[in-house]
Amino acid sequence: MLILGVDPGTAIMGYGVIEQQANKLRALRYHCWRTKAHTPPEERLLTLYQEMTELLSEIPVDQVAVEELFFNRNTTTALSVAQARGIVLLAAAQRGVPVFSYTPLQVKQAVVGYGRADKRQVQHMVKALLGLSEIPNPDDTADALAVAICHAHSGHLGLVKKNTYF
Amino acid sequence: MLILGVDPGTAIMGYGVIEQQANKLRALRYHCWRTKAHTPPEERLLTLYQEMTELLSEIPVDQVAVEELFFNRNTTTALSVAQARGIVLLAAAQRGVPVFSYTPLQVKQAVVGYGRADKRQVQHMVKALLGLSEIPNPDDTADALAVAICHAHSGHLGLVKKNTYF
Repeated sequence: MLILGVDPGTAIMGYGVIEQQANKLRALRYHCWRTKAHTPPEERLLTLYQEMTELLSEIPVDQVAVEELFFNRNTTTALSVAQARGIVLLAAAQRGVPVFSYTPLQVKQAVVGYGRADKRQVQHMVKALLGLSEIPNPDDTADALAVAICHAHSGHLGLVKKNTYF
Repeated sequence: MLILGVDPGTAIMGYGVIEQQANKLRALRYHCWRTKAHTPPEERLLTLYQEMTELLSEIPVDQVAVEELFFNRNTTTALSVAQARGIVLLAAAQRGVPVFSYTPLQVKQAVVGYGRADKRQVQHMVKALLGLSEIPNPDDTADALAVAICHAHSGHLGLVKKNTYF
């Protein structure tokens, strides 16, 4: 079972593909896609779409896990991230890959066992659970792997797709 | 000059293509795309993407005008609309059609001449300016035509694309 985790963003989008065999998790590929600063959003979204589509054509992932957005201080950023998230959902849907969404709270609980865990704790657990030699960076990559791990631990693998309407 | 105006949304997305010749505006095609209720967002976004891509392949629009989002009461809706807006930007970028964004305030000022105009006033002006026999419905269609008219009146036609980073 191959799971692609994505941490959406317009300037930088983290991604991580993990393989789950029984209870063992292994990271296959992880990094991030960056888009050029000072370019219009539609060009950035096009770049992200092309990158993700290319990844999906190279690695036949079975399921996609993506963070659900929540509102923090910067609402403009939240809308921009939501636009990028739309691209992720579209690219997955075009290949018929089911998409699962998790809140940051769910991700932390699944990865660290504690919903209020800080970023550093999540990163350490990502490294430990995947047997990596170092913490993946940038943060977006570690976050993408975290949401993939969350999905692997969620018990949704092979089950009927959880319906989320956002 | 053909302008496509879009009022983004996940359940319903209004669109309107207008033609501008000198100072004359004419509505070529306008309606809305609807997606099935109780289907996951990725399937809805895929439907909208297919619809918009089909429209762009049928009508060689020169420019796309789309409303900028702002936050109102329902933040979950705003994020959902932003995802759909990302699809609009992507579809335009894939065909190399420049995208222009306008705030609701700009649209009202351009169409009614008054930034605090209400929905009904905007709809009446859309009907009058395009010489339609009745107000387009649903509201999303009238809103899409309004943003197209706003762009036609903005003086950006044929000029260097206005850079918006959201």
